[in-house]
Amino acid sequence: MSFPNVKPVSRPLETGLRRIIDTKTKPPGSLGRLETLALKMGLIQGTLKPKIERPAMIVFAADHGIAQEGVSAYPQEVTAQMVANFLVGGAAINALSRSVGMTLEVVNAGVASPIPLEGYEHQSMGKGTRNFVKETAMTRDEALEAIARGAARVRHHASLGTNVIGFGEMGIANTSAAACLMSRLCNVPIDECVGRGTGLDDRGVIHKRDVLANALAFHADAARENDAIDTLAIFGGFEIAMMTGAYLAAAEANMTILVDGFIATSALLVASKIAPDVLEYCVFAHASNEAGHRRMLQHFDAAPLLQLDLRLGEGTGAALALPILCAAVAFVDEMASFESAGVSDKKA
Amino acid sequence: MSFPNVKPVSRPLETGLRRIIDTKTKPPGSLGRLETLALKMGLIQGTLKPKIERPAMIVFAADHGIAQEGVSAYPQEVTAQMVANFLVGGAAINALSRSVGMTLEVVNAGVASPIPLEGYEHQSMGKGTRNFVKETAMTRDEALEAIARGAARVRHHASLGTNVIGFGEMGIANTSAAACLMSRLCNVPIDECVGRGTGLDDRGVIHKRDVLANALAFHADAARENDAIDTLAIFGGFEIAMMTGAYLAAAEANMTILVDGFIATSALLVASKIAPDVLEYCVFAHASNEAGHRRMLQHFDAAPLLQLDLRLGEGTGAALALPILCAAVAFVDEMASFESAGVSDKKA
Repeated sequence: MSFPNVKPVSRPLETGLRRIIDTKTKPPGSLGRLETLALKMGLIQGTLKPKIERPAMIVFAADHGIAQEGVSAYPQEVTAQMVANFLVGGAAINALSRSVGMTLEVVNAGVASPIPLEGYEHQSMGKGTRNFVKETAMTRDEALEAIARGAARVRHHASLGTNVIGFGEMGIANTSAAACLMSRLCNVPIDECVGRGTGLDDRGVIHKRDVLANALAFHADAARENDAIDTLAIFGGFEIAMMTGAYLAAAEANMTILVDGFIATSALLVASKIAPDVLEYCVFAHASNEAGHRRMLQHFDAAPLLQLDLRLGEGTGAALALPILCAAVAFVDEMASFESAGVSDKKA
Repeated sequence: MSFPNVKPVSRPLETGLRRIIDTKTKPPGSLGRLETLALKMGLIQGTLKPKIERPAMIVFAADHGIAQEGVSAYPQEVTAQMVANFLVGGAAINALSRSVGMTLEVVNAGVASPIPLEGYEHQSMGKGTRNFVKETAMTRDEALEAIARGAARVRHHASLGTNVIGFGEMGIANTSAAACLMSRLCNVPIDECVGRGTGLDDRGVIHKRDVLANALAFHADAARENDAIDTLAIFGGFEIAMMTGAYLAAAEANMTILVDGFIATSALLVASKIAPDVLEYCVFAHASNEAGHRRMLQHFDAAPLLQLDLRLGEGTGAALALPILCAAVAFVDEMASFESAGVSDKKA
């Protein structure tokens, strides 16, 4: 399988798109961010008539060796239990994907415990990563293989017609992996990258920070090279690596990408180090309350569409932003122009 | 027709609703504002299983005598032209209502120019209000009649099963009416209430502010009484008066009300002076960039769901928030509990 090839979006349509948007029956600019979203989707899709086809959500699940250090409020078995919950339709991302009309796929990227049900994509890289306090979470080859598998899932959806996609994740302790990736790739002290995850108390947060600070110190030499794939191999999870490949393949396929929360954004961090143009395809969906997420959004100079105090992951923030994209496409497609509607333009 | 009777929402279900929300398979509180919305809708509907039925948008259109003072960037004929545009489906609120699945009704509350098409509700109170620089915009009896007509439209939708509703408006110069209502009812200097409307330049804003300051001074004695209906009669528009009645009737019918932008919120200001409990039924949908709107939201201590830089009115902000309400209802209805899904709760 070929490594995804990400190109910049094509600019020639920009003038035409702006003209269409500006002559709709509304004061210029008065649809605010719907206008910039419509322009963005037109450029991504290379058309004056952007549309949304078969919107999809892929949730990647995997376990993390770092969970052995007691950095999460939940036991590791919860990853497999939540995957089972996804498969029977009982999790938040099930309800939200259905609510907004997104197809949902669940990928086992490397869950440690047995998953008692079928209905997911089998792409397991193993029973979780190794504990990165003592060794690298995965090898560079494993990281590359996971990237390829994530890309393959997106190419599958592209072949079915999907042109808008979001990525979610499940993995006990994966905020720890994301925090270390962020610290190293953004060159930010670990203190600014660590939050409560799914619900640590103050003592838990201090412990988590100490564990991660030690891990970063242990891998200080290796990380000095600042190679994104090596850094991903040291600290990442299999779900984060697959999301990295998924972003790249989605951009390659000219999809509009809805970027979810802290973990999903950490994978984008890796992807954007590999291919910076991937960011032209991204819409930041939600600013979560996870401490590091806002700092990471600053790194991307991103102003997410929504701020609804979510801190769940699974892709929930990305799903909730889809209706806004639908509205952006709808106004371009359905609104009259001043001329066609016979509405007087501004006073001279 | 009876004046709407607004009661507080009933609190006995609060404990039960919180328990249902807290035992879903997610860390407590992690769905953020979706959780508070679900609770709110459960209390409004008086049920542990809130649902959304036949969501509706009513757009009230009317003209304003104050438009003669050159306070808008657009000529008065645009009100009728835009109503015609609503009727052929070419305006932003048409595209957005369709996109989110809302029924749309257009009410002629008092448009000055002839409307060349059918398909709207005929509730016209006259060819626009009088110019409130020199006299009251309407009589107190006219204000009460418009309130009753707005309430009647909502009761009609209640009889069809609607339990979520939004109100939009169209009326050249109606930000001037809204600014004066706000200044008087919130006791805020007019400078903090005046913005660019649909697109005034700096000179236009200064002129608008001077016109409105003079009008407020002219009516200073009358307004000292601080009676909401009298104040509405002095400065309001027929569409604002009908929206006032619409809010009250929607609360009476236990509907969840999506509150749009500056004009829609000024009508809520009047409604909440008449019946403060109406606010328990309201979800503030969008924080617009109209200068006065943010100040008005402060008055209500409101944190709207969305901030998408819209400044169009028509109900567009309210429509865009509906999918978030749908998501809130969906998670309560469809998510499993920790117990039913066999997912381990937090470590002890």
